[in-house]
Amino acid sequence: MISKNKIKFILSLQKKKIRDEQRLYVIEGDKLVREYIKAGIKLQLLVSKPEFINSLQPDQKDYMEEAELASYDDLKHMSTLKTPHNALAVVRMPGTDINLQEVYKGLAVALDFVQDPGNLGTIIRTAAWFGIRYIFCSENCVDVYNPKVVQASMGAILHVRVNYCDLRQFLGDARKKKVPVYGTLLEGESIYSIRAGRKGIILLGNESKGISPELMPFVTKKLVIPKFTSATIGIESLNVGMAASIVFSEFARRNRQTLTVSDRGLHPVHQE
Amino acid sequence: MISKNKIKFILSLQKKKIRDEQRLYVIEGDKLVREYIKAGIKLQLLVSKPEFINSLQPDQKDYMEEAELASYDDLKHMSTLKTPHNALAVVRMPGTDINLQEVYKGLAVALDFVQDPGNLGTIIRTAAWFGIRYIFCSENCVDVYNPKVVQASMGAILHVRVNYCDLRQFLGDARKKKVPVYGTLLEGESIYSIRAGRKGIILLGNESKGISPELMPFVTKKLVIPKFTSATIGIESLNVGMAASIVFSEFARRNRQTLTVSDRGLHPVHQE
Repeated sequence: MISKNKIKFILSLQKKKIRDEQRLYVIEGDKLVREYIKAGIKLQLLVSKPEFINSLQPDQKDYMEEAELASYDDLKHMSTLKTPHNALAVVRMPGTDINLQEVYKGLAVALDFVQDPGNLGTIIRTAAWFGIRYIFCSENCVDVYNPKVVQASMGAILHVRVNYCDLRQFLGDARKKKVPVYGTLLEGESIYSIRAGRKGIILLGNESKGISPELMPFVTKKLVIPKFTSATIGIESLNVGMAASIVFSEFARRNRQTLTVSDRGLHPVHQE
Repeated sequence: MISKNKIKFILSLQKKKIRDEQRLYVIEGDKLVREYIKAGIKLQLLVSKPEFINSLQPDQKDYMEEAELASYDDLKHMSTLKTPHNALAVVRMPGTDINLQEVYKGLAVALDFVQDPGNLGTIIRTAAWFGIRYIFCSENCVDVYNPKVVQASMGAILHVRVNYCDLRQFLGDARKKKVPVYGTLLEGESIYSIRAGRKGIILLGNESKGISPELMPFVTKKLVIPKFTSATIGIESLNVGMAASIVFSEFARRNRQTLTVSDRGLHPVHQE
């Protein structure tokens, strides 16, 4: 059975400071753990009920450095969820080196002060769906390895590189390279009619404050999601996750002839 | 100051059963209360700190049947939030009579077993944004007057009628009237190329199970949001709120010449 010290170590990973020092984070849930194994990600430590580990194939066990059994009560103690799952795992964070030349070749996302873990998680999930591989977060965004973000992204963080940086510097560099920066705002050109490029950075702002004034000079195209009602009360803006989904979908739709669409039960890509 | 009995009454409204009996629900937050007053909604009871009620205009006070002062501690006790706001109010639910002829004239939404309050709240908000005025929920969906739904919808429930009914009956009636039913699925025709009508019902399913088998026979058009990646692990589906936003946006885009777009800082409606 798992030792008290290891339980303490796993609990310590709920703190961003410790995660950053150790370059480790925790994933929770039978499904998520299986997804990571399926994706070939090495687990530093698997903690599970006996029935979970027994259900794994022998070759799947090669994907873990260490495995510990735990009781329901132990798992409940370590869990950030109300009801614990049968398994959780400690995983190494990916490296932070980014090839900007690669980023500038496609669409990337920049998030300014997105605070809600659920919003970041779903933005990562939608980005992955639409083939966006890089998200640049301002330093004051919620941490991508926060347990709630990991939970909400549901494994999509395996496909999207999330980096934290000074967005002024990042967007400044993009400007030098003539990479367009699309700012999602309450005023601008309709996303339905703007010339949506295949390259560029989609910048989304804070849940209530929008894009910071200090980042506005970097915006080269102002985007707006038109509102189809004359009502104003109670609908001043869209949730940032919703806005992200709509913008990503619209860019994907415009550019879809050049993108690969998964053929898992989907119609082939074709023009309207 | 507010009496213990009134506090008890407000707390009792956290229960769906009591809300339904009384036909009352609670809104929390200075902003939300102000929005309701601005929209001309009568408050059955306002509970606030003195500074909140003092900040209202004299004519705004006409919108309340009753007002009670409360301390921070009282508000904290009544609140469903970690940090209470300065005001909350008890509001009467709108009537439940629906003119189906009216519903069938435009786009409406049907939600099958949507359980997460945040999802329902944001779907209401996005529906309102795109001018959708009716949402039909299966009886096992989360209650629209659940405090978390009210909070997440941020006042948008003032613009959208949310009804609970047996969806088999509702969709059966739609079928008789030849109203198309668009089912959002993992297989079907791409939302980017389907003929999106100006009338019809957009049916969205449960967070993990999708649309119930018993409702599938009512679907006349199967919609899919194409995935722009060949990756599968960790991105089997989109969150139902995200999917809703993308589908509503796409229908609005196709039909926008016939809809009124608010002119608050937006470009006029025009074709691509």
